[in-house]
Amino acid sequence: MATITSVSPLAPAGFPDLPVIDGVAFASGEAGVKYAGRKDVCLITLAPGSSVAGTFTKSATRSANVLDCQRKLGGDSSAGAAFFINSGNSNAFTGRAGEGSVQAISAAISAATGLPEDRVFTSSTGVIGERLPHEKITAKIGDLVAGLDANGIEGAAQAIRTTDTFAKASARTLEVGGKSVKIAGIAKGSGMIAPDMATMLVYIFTDAKVSQPLLQQILSELTDVTFNCITVDSDTSTSDTLLLGATGTSGVEITESRGPFRDALEAVMLELAHLVVKDGEGATKFVEVQITGAVNDADAKTHGLAIANSPLVKTAVAGEDANWGRVVMAIGKSGAAADRDLLSIRFGDIIVAEKGWVAESYSEDAGAAYMKQDHLVIGVDLGLGDGKATVWTCDLTHGYISINADYRS
Amino acid sequence: MATITSVSPLAPAGFPDLPVIDGVAFASGEAGVKYAGRKDVCLITLAPGSSVAGTFTKSATRSANVLDCQRKLGGDSSAGAAFFINSGNSNAFTGRAGEGSVQAISAAISAATGLPEDRVFTSSTGVIGERLPHEKITAKIGDLVAGLDANGIEGAAQAIRTTDTFAKASARTLEVGGKSVKIAGIAKGSGMIAPDMATMLVYIFTDAKVSQPLLQQILSELTDVTFNCITVDSDTSTSDTLLLGATGTSGVEITESRGPFRDALEAVMLELAHLVVKDGEGATKFVEVQITGAVNDADAKTHGLAIANSPLVKTAVAGEDANWGRVVMAIGKSGAAADRDLLSIRFGDIIVAEKGWVAESYSEDAGAAYMKQDHLVIGVDLGLGDGKATVWTCDLTHGYISINADYRS
Repeated sequence: MATITSVSPLAPAGFPDLPVIDGVAFASGEAGVKYAGRKDVCLITLAPGSSVAGTFTKSATRSANVLDCQRKLGGDSSAGAAFFINSGNSNAFTGRAGEGSVQAISAAISAATGLPEDRVFTSSTGVIGERLPHEKITAKIGDLVAGLDANGIEGAAQAIRTTDTFAKASARTLEVGGKSVKIAGIAKGSGMIAPDMATMLVYIFTDAKVSQPLLQQILSELTDVTFNCITVDSDTSTSDTLLLGATGTSGVEITESRGPFRDALEAVMLELAHLVVKDGEGATKFVEVQITGAVNDADAKTHGLAIANSPLVKTAVAGEDANWGRVVMAIGKSGAAADRDLLSIRFGDIIVAEKGWVAESYSEDAGAAYMKQDHLVIGVDLGLGDGKATVWTCDLTHGYISINADYRS
Repeated sequence: MATITSVSPLAPAGFPDLPVIDGVAFASGEAGVKYAGRKDVCLITLAPGSSVAGTFTKSATRSANVLDCQRKLGGDSSAGAAFFINSGNSNAFTGRAGEGSVQAISAAISAATGLPEDRVFTSSTGVIGERLPHEKITAKIGDLVAGLDANGIEGAAQAIRTTDTFAKASARTLEVGGKSVKIAGIAKGSGMIAPDMATMLVYIFTDAKVSQPLLQQILSELTDVTFNCITVDSDTSTSDTLLLGATGTSGVEITESRGPFRDALEAVMLELAHLVVKDGEGATKFVEVQITGAVNDADAKTHGLAIANSPLVKTAVAGEDANWGRVVMAIGKSGAAADRDLLSIRFGDIIVAEKGWVAESYSEDAGAAYMKQDHLVIGVDLGLGDGKATVWTCDLTHGYISINADYRS
């Protein structure tokens, strides 16, 4: 397995202070799923009445765990819920055996906690195509249940790391009708999970009371403008999972999809999404691609992702090269509507090209100086309509090749 | 500009012997478009009566030259035709000035050769977004016309190189009704064209007599299964151009779209397409992705390109890692139909996975030994239908990053 020895240069200074979410408890431990001597299992329980929403990879080859979570969403929430995560083995592409492993883990957690099996949501991350040795996991469930701790969220954020170079978390507290509502979340990704692919796992908790259908609606809408707008290398894991649990323990009920709760949740999701990009394999630059003037928002997102996924754009960013020609190329190939002679491009506040040609005011020195920053904005206006989108990515460096080619399983 | 000092390890042993195509003449020279002291212009003339077909980039931001060639195709062929190519400047994203440059070059060639302007087809490759100094080019047209030579095809193949690490050519000769028909072609790509993107330019000549509509039909159909089935990095140039000229000088007329002429042309196009991949930036492995059992051919091509464009698959190949999990991932994300539990995957003749799980007969040692070869086959059977497609690509290496990020304009 690759040994990641240095923390991403884009990592924040440290792990943030996170509020305790009343009704949520965390435990982590070592089950030896693939390697000995490292934490590889994590259990999180949510109080009775907690509603659970989720969004998942759209992969046609998604794992047994993902399919199982999708099936369980929306069920009776009176008893509470549990989230379980293991690393070391993704339980993906394991045929029917994969479903058996999910069932065995769910049954063991049900037996140890009293929760119905249908309220146990599991995630697995790691090697593909090998049977998950779930008996190593079920043997540890008792220890995990005994170790559950309301203050354990930082430990959980550490436990779900695989080769992430730093633990990722975000939180917001808001006031609603004079009462405090808390939101806290943790994420892993996109450091390599030897020997396979980056998987993104995200778990967010709030003490707001939100009905499951409304919680799902808000989460799905926000996923489209946060986690579905980031890309490291255009590849999609078979295991990507985002679960959101709302305990209701604050006594504050949210009944509208718009408003301060949604805004605070969006801020948490966006910060976690950005942290995933900032830990992208080999990343040295964080890039925000802002598209405006597209025919519609969907076209804008298509253009944004074409730029963010272009190897030639990403290597230009790595090389601190203000290569706007590659941006033009990416727009041209995206398949969405564009008119060469209406395009404008800027790097930060520097206008590079206007109406299909290099701007008179543009100087290559100014462009080159801008590209030395580690947070960059590439702005494109299509000049066609009101469609807009923002996506985020990182550069493509020798570090990416080293992680994914030089080190082998 | 990047200095490419070593020839691709996948290059053929040498430049092939090419037959003279009666009615075609070649000249090349130095116009100093961007750099002094290197050949950067090439003129090719075709005899009166030559029909010309073409296929081009689908980019929405394609260059003035491409738009001009597309407009001119299908016109009166009685006078003959000329192809002109310059490197150093792509004349792309140069606003209305780009059209003026094409017109100026076409007019100069028309004046020097007597051909109508509408029979002059131009290509430009190189930097994007800078005005093409076409006056340097028009000043050299007289010299080029004076140097036209029926034996000049190897010189032309050399002249259209930019940072390709080797000159690319292919030829076939076939017998039709006791008469000989010749086909010969040259290509450039996908070595970097500093400071922008790889552009693929291809020029093919035959002495068969083929009506323009039939020539276009055959060329378009064959492009879909040759040049449109290769990918180096998923990025698309604004200038990609393939022109095919048929002089008719053999006296053999082709009237059917199927048959030996089409087969020979396909062989030339496929060989040129493979040579482009083998000169992919940083390439050390040539990979053929064979998809069978898809719902239809279009789905098969979607799966094939998803695998061939996946950075995680391409880095695994670079690392000689038989990482079939990444192949599963690419199939899952492609958007085309797949059933996890019906998938089979092989590397060469080695069955890796069957019906959604690792094959009992598979050994990691056998997989690892296979991956050391420099020509690899990744085979996937979807188990869903009769759809099939084959695509070709190369690996993703430190060389790609070095060419595109470390060296700068």
